[in-house]
Amino acid sequence: MKKRYAIGIDFGSLSARAALFQIEDGKQIGENVSEYKHGVIEHYLCGDKKIPLEPGSLIQHPQDFLDSFKESVQGLLMQTKVEPEEIAGIGMDATSCTLIPADENGTPLCFGVAFKDNQYTYFQMWKQHTTQAEADEINELAHKMGESFVKQYSGKISCEWAFPKMLHTLRKSPEVYEAADTFYDLVDWLVLQITGEKMLNCCSAGGAFCWNDKTGFPSSEFLSRLDERFGNAATEKLSSNLKPIDHIAGYINEKGAELTGLKAGTPVAVGKIDSLAAVCSVGVNSPGKLVFIMGTGAALMVLNKEPIYMRGLYGVYYGGAAPDYYVHTAGITGYGDTFDWFIENALPINDSIKTKGELHMEISEKAEILKPGESGLVAINWWNGDRSPLNDFDLSGVLFGYTLQTKPEEVYRALLEATAYNVLQLIDNFKENGMQVDEVYAVGGIPKKNKLLVQIYADILGIPIIVPDVDNACTLGSGIYAAVAAGKSNGGYDSVEAAIDAMACKDAIVYSPDTENHAAYIPLYEIYKKLHFLLGEENKGILHQLKRIRTEKSAKRD
Amino acid sequence: MKKRYAIGIDFGSLSARAALFQIEDGKQIGENVSEYKHGVIEHYLCGDKKIPLEPGSLIQHPQDFLDSFKESVQGLLMQTKVEPEEIAGIGMDATSCTLIPADENGTPLCFGVAFKDNQYTYFQMWKQHTTQAEADEINELAHKMGESFVKQYSGKISCEWAFPKMLHTLRKSPEVYEAADTFYDLVDWLVLQITGEKMLNCCSAGGAFCWNDKTGFPSSEFLSRLDERFGNAATEKLSSNLKPIDHIAGYINEKGAELTGLKAGTPVAVGKIDSLAAVCSVGVNSPGKLVFIMGTGAALMVLNKEPIYMRGLYGVYYGGAAPDYYVHTAGITGYGDTFDWFIENALPINDSIKTKGELHMEISEKAEILKPGESGLVAINWWNGDRSPLNDFDLSGVLFGYTLQTKPEEVYRALLEATAYNVLQLIDNFKENGMQVDEVYAVGGIPKKNKLLVQIYADILGIPIIVPDVDNACTLGSGIYAAVAAGKSNGGYDSVEAAIDAMACKDAIVYSPDTENHAAYIPLYEIYKKLHFLLGEENKGILHQLKRIRTEKSAKRD
Repeated sequence: MKKRYAIGIDFGSLSARAALFQIEDGKQIGENVSEYKHGVIEHYLCGDKKIPLEPGSLIQHPQDFLDSFKESVQGLLMQTKVEPEEIAGIGMDATSCTLIPADENGTPLCFGVAFKDNQYTYFQMWKQHTTQAEADEINELAHKMGESFVKQYSGKISCEWAFPKMLHTLRKSPEVYEAADTFYDLVDWLVLQITGEKMLNCCSAGGAFCWNDKTGFPSSEFLSRLDERFGNAATEKLSSNLKPIDHIAGYINEKGAELTGLKAGTPVAVGKIDSLAAVCSVGVNSPGKLVFIMGTGAALMVLNKEPIYMRGLYGVYYGGAAPDYYVHTAGITGYGDTFDWFIENALPINDSIKTKGELHMEISEKAEILKPGESGLVAINWWNGDRSPLNDFDLSGVLFGYTLQTKPEEVYRALLEATAYNVLQLIDNFKENGMQVDEVYAVGGIPKKNKLLVQIYADILGIPIIVPDVDNACTLGSGIYAAVAAGKSNGGYDSVEAAIDAMACKDAIVYSPDTENHAAYIPLYEIYKKLHFLLGEENKGILHQLKRIRTEKSAKRD
Repeated sequence: MKKRYAIGIDFGSLSARAALFQIEDGKQIGENVSEYKHGVIEHYLCGDKKIPLEPGSLIQHPQDFLDSFKESVQGLLMQTKVEPEEIAGIGMDATSCTLIPADENGTPLCFGVAFKDNQYTYFQMWKQHTTQAEADEINELAHKMGESFVKQYSGKISCEWAFPKMLHTLRKSPEVYEAADTFYDLVDWLVLQITGEKMLNCCSAGGAFCWNDKTGFPSSEFLSRLDERFGNAATEKLSSNLKPIDHIAGYINEKGAELTGLKAGTPVAVGKIDSLAAVCSVGVNSPGKLVFIMGTGAALMVLNKEPIYMRGLYGVYYGGAAPDYYVHTAGITGYGDTFDWFIENALPINDSIKTKGELHMEISEKAEILKPGESGLVAINWWNGDRSPLNDFDLSGVLFGYTLQTKPEEVYRALLEATAYNVLQLIDNFKENGMQVDEVYAVGGIPKKNKLLVQIYADILGIPIIVPDVDNACTLGSGIYAAVAAGKSNGGYDSVEAAIDAMACKDAIVYSPDTENHAAYIPLYEIYKKLHFLLGEENKGILHQLKRIRTEKSAKRD
């Protein structure tokens, strides 16, 4: 039998990344990235007509995903010279909830003449926040009616999720809502394009579609109370084919073979949300281990046999990151983004010859020699709002303690420290609610590049931080599930455990806390928590008002 | 009779500036600046021994003042080719409280061998804050004993003032306190050097020596309760010769003639504090007019026939800025300093070829097109603590509302706006306490250079801002008092009113508020006040703790 390979594809915010892995040991043989042609569409719908979008809209074009799907996979095959028949299976993950309405064949409504000028027939991107009013409405009514689904989201669903986006579509464009056969999360729509199989993967379902493994979706009664036309949102406008993440989604059909250059009949794994696909890539498949994905935003995930509903989480749901476990997720919105903001907007020595990476390195070297507390600065990292613990996107960043002596490297360090306090706050929350967190895995490009950042985490958290040596945790995670979809008979594995044992990343660098620094950070963490409470809870109206004024005044300018 | 001139000299933090004025119309004929040789002495006493200073010390060398006195005045005479006999009088002002102990001849103790290695025999600079513990002690005891003097300082004297500095000297170096015949404020010491006359000018006395026109100095009983050796602080260690600011201090003696190049017998006006000397230069000599001096720090002054004791002021005292009025002062510590901090530490496009002034101009152009509120940013301008209304130097700056979209020009504008909110808060405080403020005079180099800043003040305050076209308000103010010291018989004037009528600056640019912007600023000002209260009063312990931690950790590094 020839050597067997798995392909994992990660559909990110701006590009698709396909990677090829040896199934026997998970070794990455090659990867290929394809950027979306239109990227994020912001002010006008693409096309000559310059149709203005609703302010704050973040739209993506379905054709871009198909083009990048094709380019990334076909390019990968060319580059690695692996034959299509050597591919045992493919798996994929994507941003979520990046939602689109499609007809009964899964064709986006924007592909037809009738709707191509209607923004609500394109993908509404995960990080679009125009649907806050609908989220507020859903949350309020759920509390009023005592609906149980909100408890798995700490009492408050996010405006980024499916029902707020669907309700927004109904309100803004009822004819689109009416015409839609099904609303799909991006990864399920991609799977459908190459397999012909309609489904809702359990990871997206629990993470962004308010689905509970025991009680299902929010009731029609509840949904129709939001709007009488919305009663069918769960029963008719979503796929009822709920698929666990370790299952096979289907097989590549003729259309899929043409698109990808892979053989028809190749097994395709059920899709999943990007950050959740990453968990297995570093070998995490049991409780007590926090996987912390540090990217543009950041996500924290811990597994547990039973769900523990608590405040401060983004979601608790079954089978999101490992088949038999409830995943408990929390997040930081505006993570790497915030550090980049500093480099681009607040660093005085901006040498245009230097890359952003070099500038990060340079300022980190200066920040590294600072002692905890000596700057007198504490930041609250709300540059893009607070995802966890408050789930409040109307908050904005605050920096306390500026003096005439404040240096740029002190501000930079304060921003790094703030995110570590945020993570410690979330870990404390897990522990206070009876959940074990013994190990922290820092995953993503940032912890491999920024040693200062990881050391600060070790010092503030007071525990060792494990940085696995994985190239791309999402593609490897999707590759692992691809090998499971292939199955043992096809050169893959029959269980996620077996696939992880063979393929997950085993090498890591461990950063140990410095005892003196850890002690110095204790009172600073207390200050962070006090300020977090003061401005994020007790007096949150102040920052909310600033946001309102900002939105009003900017809208006037547009 | 030949043409008559007056000389005004301003002894600032880093240099002395002497200017020559035509007495008939106040026209400036020339000016000459001399920088102090040692500037501000910070870590080690000057000299080869490298004697370390108490951390936080800011020391100045008396010889520097004498050298710059000589250089500035003699250079001015050379430059303008005016004959010494044409000088009808001279006047001077200086930073305060910049304090030195001297022997019975007015010779600084550091000039003798016994004490030259003792830092407490040099000038303790006005902005040195090492004496906060003594100020706290004085304030606490004053409240306990019901001493009336604190009421004229809103219940709290500043650590920058004379008694905290004297008590600190006693505690740190009792032998210096013992050996000192008299402690002098800088301007009085300078006058003494050229006239031989010992005095305490009423401006410094009321502003920095806790002197009240009705009740005098704090009682010996009170002072001895602070320390039994301190009972003589007011009665023996200060000059009892209190001199109103419109009086003549004396005449240049032989030593003074040698130093300055002026004729012996030339009248010398009583000295005063720099910002208070500036008031008359723009023609302000009556109530209802706020003079706002915008420099490194900023000072606000309003006159009134009767004293109005209220919270939030820096001092209320008789004859400080005009002979027959009580001056009501407030201040912002860290004013131009804070704007410069931004240019040096937080502006990304730092082109080394450009001057600081050009960078200010460039960023102002970008900030000018922003609408009030559209950045969502509000700053609390505590980069160097709060002088008024809180008189709390343990506070530090805060910036609220950062987002990933925040631009440098938005931060810059937020800093400018914060100082305007601070001024509006102080004006509101005046008005709430029954004091008229009908006109605002913006004085200093900054309002002449930064039009955006002045327009923001007009918009936030909602009243026109008057920017007098005066080169240097302090030297002109001292020149006006010099003409009064000369007297009418000597080609000067017999009253401050007459001198002001002839010599004060009459040209001005007036900035009118934009109605729409003013309306937009109203809710933002409310937010500023809320945050000011929240962090400066209700929860001030948080920033105080950050300051304590910063001080501790930095000290460890030193």
